[in-house]
Formats: sequence, C-alpha cells, structure tokens
Amino acid sequence: MRKWKRINRREKTLNKPIGIIDSGIGGLTVAEEIARQLPKEPMIYIGDTARCPYGPRTVEEVRLFTWQMIDHLVNENIKMLIIACNTATAVVLDEVQERLPIPVVGVVQPGALAALNVTNRKEIAVIGTEGTIKSDAYPLALTSIQGEKVTVHSLACPMFVPLVEQGRVSADEARRVVADTLKPLLQKSFDTLILGCTHYPLLAPIIQNVVGEGVQVISSGSETAREVSTILQHQGLNQKDDRTREHVFFTTGSVQHFQTIAKRWLGLEEQIVDHLILPA
Amino acid sequence: MRKWKRINRREKTLNKPIGIIDSGIGGLTVAEEIARQLPKEPMIYIGDTARCPYGPRTVEEVRLFTWQMIDHLVNENIKMLIIACNTATAVVLDEVQERLPIPVVGVVQPGALAALNVTNRKEIAVIGTEGTIKSDAYPLALTSIQGEKVTVHSLACPMFVPLVEQGRVSADEARRVVADTLKPLLQKSFDTLILGCTHYPLLAPIIQNVVGEGVQVISSGSETAREVSTILQHQGLNQKDDRTREHVFFTTGSVQHFQTIAKRWLGLEEQIVDHLILPA
Repeated sequence: MRKWKRINRREKTLNKPIGIIDSGIGGLTVAEEIARQLPKEPMIYIGDTARCPYGPRTVEEVRLFTWQMIDHLVNENIKMLIIACNTATAVVLDEVQERLPIPVVGVVQPGALAALNVTNRKEIAVIGTEGTIKSDAYPLALTSIQGEKVTVHSLACPMFVPLVEQGRVSADEARRVVADTLKPLLQKSFDTLILGCTHYPLLAPIIQNVVGEGVQVISSGSETAREVSTILQHQGLNQKDDRTREHVFFTTGSVQHFQTIAKRWLGLEEQIVDHLILPA
Repeated sequence: MRKWKRINRREKTLNKPIGIIDSGIGGLTVAEEIARQLPKEPMIYIGDTARCPYGPRTVEEVRLFTWQMIDHLVNENIKMLIIACNTATAVVLDEVQERLPIPVVGVVQPGALAALNVTNRKEIAVIGTEGTIKSDAYPLALTSIQGEKVTVHSLACPMFVPLVEQGRVSADEARRVVADTLKPLLQKSFDTLILGCTHYPLLAPIIQNVVGEGVQVISSGSETAREVSTILQHQGLNQKDDRTREHVFFTTGSVQHFQTIAKRWLGLEEQIVDHLILPA
C-alpha cells in the first residue's frame, strides 16, 4: 500500500510542467528548444513583457519582478524552474536555488559550459544586455571553472533586445546595428561567441555573418534545453509517457503580440496565451 | 563549531577526485576532455586493459569486471563516478546509480542528448561495439525522450577497437576498414552520427571523411565531460581552488603501453600510471 502511494506520487511529479520565466519573449527561444529536444515535457511560461527589458533595471527591481513570477509558478506546482533571462539569472539564481526545493536552472551556466566544450584556444567573447555584462556573470562562471586558462571579452549590446522585441530581425537596419555594435569586439581574438541573452538567437544569422564563419556561436536556448535534459534524466524527473498537457503561456503585456510571436517561433497554430497581472 | 565542521567536510568533498572506469584506453578520450574542460578536477582512472575489449563479453562478465573496478574506486573515496565505456554503461549504469551514494554518469546519455541538440531532421546514426549495439542502449535513450519522432540507425563496428588499441589510427588500413565497415550505414538517411564507443574519437577524422561533411559527428568524450561539468556545478561539488592532487591512472595490463598512450593523448609528460591487479 505504501509502495503504491509512493509510485503514484512519483508519476504525478513526472507529469508536472517545467516552469520558465523571462523578462519577455526572449525565453521563447529556450521554450522552443525544450519543445524540440524534450517533446514529452509540458511547459508553463511567464513573460514579463509589460516591464521588459530587465537589462537597464536596478538589481532590486530585477529581484522583485523575478520573485513575483516565481511565486506564481510555485503555485502552479512545477517540477523544475528555468530562469530564461540572463539578467535575472545573474541577479537571483543563487538565492532561488537555495530557497526552492526543486531543480533551478539559469541560462548563464549552460552557455558557459558549452563554450568551454567547443573552444580550441580558450578565447571566448560574450555579448549581452548592460545588466548581464555589468554583473560579470559569464567571466565569473568561466574563470571559476578554468582559472586563468581562459580569456573572456565582454560587450554590452543594448540595441539588440529592442530590435528583436519589435520584430525587426531581418531588416537592413538590424544588419547595420549589429555590425556597428560588434565593431569593438572584432579587434579582439576569440574563437567562440556566447549569445548571453535569450533574444539574440533571433539575430544569430546576422551575428554569425559579422563575426565570420571561424567563430562558433553558442546559443543559450539550445544549450539550456540540453542542460535541462541532463538534470531531468539524472534526477529521474523526466516524463516517460507522451505529453497529455498543453503548454501554457502567460504574458504581463499584450496577449495578441505575444501570441503572434509564440506562434511564429514555436510553429504552433493554437497556443494558449493568458494575460497575467503581477503586483505593480 | 557544528557549522565549521560542516564547511570543513564540504571542502574535503570538493577536493576528492572524479573516478573514471573503462575497459581499456578508450576512456582516456573522456579523461582528456575533463582535463581540458575542468582543469581543477583531479581524476583517478582505471583501464581494464588486460581484459579489453568488453564488446564481445557476456553481460555477466561485463557486470563482474565493472563492479570490481568500482569497488576499488569507492575505497579511493571518489566524489563522482564516470563509466567511460559504452558497453559497461549499457549493462550496469542503472544498478550502479541505484547503489552508490554519489552521482554516476555513463557515456550513453550525454551522446544521445547532444545528438538531439544538434540534429535537424531527427535522423540519427549510432556506431559502437557489438555489445553496445545489441543492448539497444542508444535507440532506447533516444526514443524514451522523443517517442516516435526520432529515427535511429545502428551499426556494430567490431573492427574499430582493435585498430585503436593497436595504435593504427592513421594507417591506410584504418581508412579501408572504416570505409568498408560503414558502407551499410551510407544507404540510410541521417544528419547526426554518434560515436557510441570511447575509442572512436581517435578515428574521428577518417569517419567524418567517410560519412561526409554534412553529418555532425558527436563524440562521447567531450559530451560526457560537458555533462559531468553540469552535474558537478548543479550539485555544488565542483572544485573551487586550483588542482593540488595529481591525476592517477591504473591499468590491469602493461603499464608501459598505457603510459605511452596516456602521454600521447593527454599531452602530459609525467603521468602516474600504476599496475592494478583485479580478482581473476
């Protein structure tokens, strides 16, 4: 009887969704990769579109907004949490990992570990929002593993998120902004570039073109999905049967805008998107 | 006082080595990648060279030999165990994970997850020893995550391990053997090839040449190091300070042969290699 109960509880755990939080729509690149790499896992996503971007926000604001989203997801009974925003990861990952009883994954470490996997010369460049770059999260992650064996060049690209959020990712303007912004980086020597912001994969073809084919471009999205996969499997939390629950997306901003982008990025015709009101 | 003790115990844990076991020298491709990606972590390695290869062995033999190596490493007080042999992973990973109180990582899952990360068409080929291919470990790992969304083609390549163990990895003969062996696979459609044996990375340039540039070749070694990195970090077991302990290698066969190969592969001039006698 006792054993049955344990198994039953376990099955219920496996069926629970993976929670994903982001400052806006950038985390959808992570969600898209989870849908592709882990098609059996249901997701519940919150994008704080109304207060995006987090990059220029103060540390206190980022902490407050992030915990508001987490509190909501904890009530939704998630089995794992992904902080799919580099800025929020840099600010709150440690304290969230300490406080929640479930695995919590940020987007900084997967990108850093993937870069160390592919780099030959251990010369790595990182681009991100001002908040992420100022936090030194990537250099700290890389040097904590490698000591002085690794060289890291960082550059803040504050113009990139607005380009993506406005959907101007293929316009000539985007190409011009990317080329201008990355100019200081091209003076440096590196063989691997981390896209340290979940919005940037949408600009990946342009970025690759600017830095040249010799540079390996690492996308947080696919690497985070890979890491989520590893941890789910390692902890025996992965869903065994086909997915029976729909993915659910919440936005604090315009449902229609979010719906359009979720559909375009995730390739799903019918997508449940709800409006979520967080405390002001 | 109590707190100090806890911290002290924790520091000692972080300083412990990572244990690696293999049927022979193939696992050195994993060790090499750990040395590169995680230079602070000390390793203790056992290669059962005297009884290599495990591929054609019975399940009972593989289980017995593997547990003998594990028993030895548990006495060496390791903080994590890597089963760096695909055949042994396929046979004993589950039971070892159940019985040991430390994280245990095999080489099948990292290769499978990396393949799912990079494949576009979800058409994946796997090559390995007869034991690994017969066990269906890769198709099972891939379909447990993807269901029917993934197609897997498997091929046993029994001639590859002897080529590598004898050091004939660049000879014309190697090229001929690889091309002949992979012929049946070239009839199939796939965009990703998993080297499902830790010896095969030594043949990677020849294999890549035979399957063509359009196929992404996944090496267990670097992907396992990546996964070890993820789990160490996620569980807070990673070494914070520079490495103070030497790596230690044991072989059940010829110390000189092992020393030569460890030196060539790991690029280390002075390498501690000891002979280890396991029960017959």
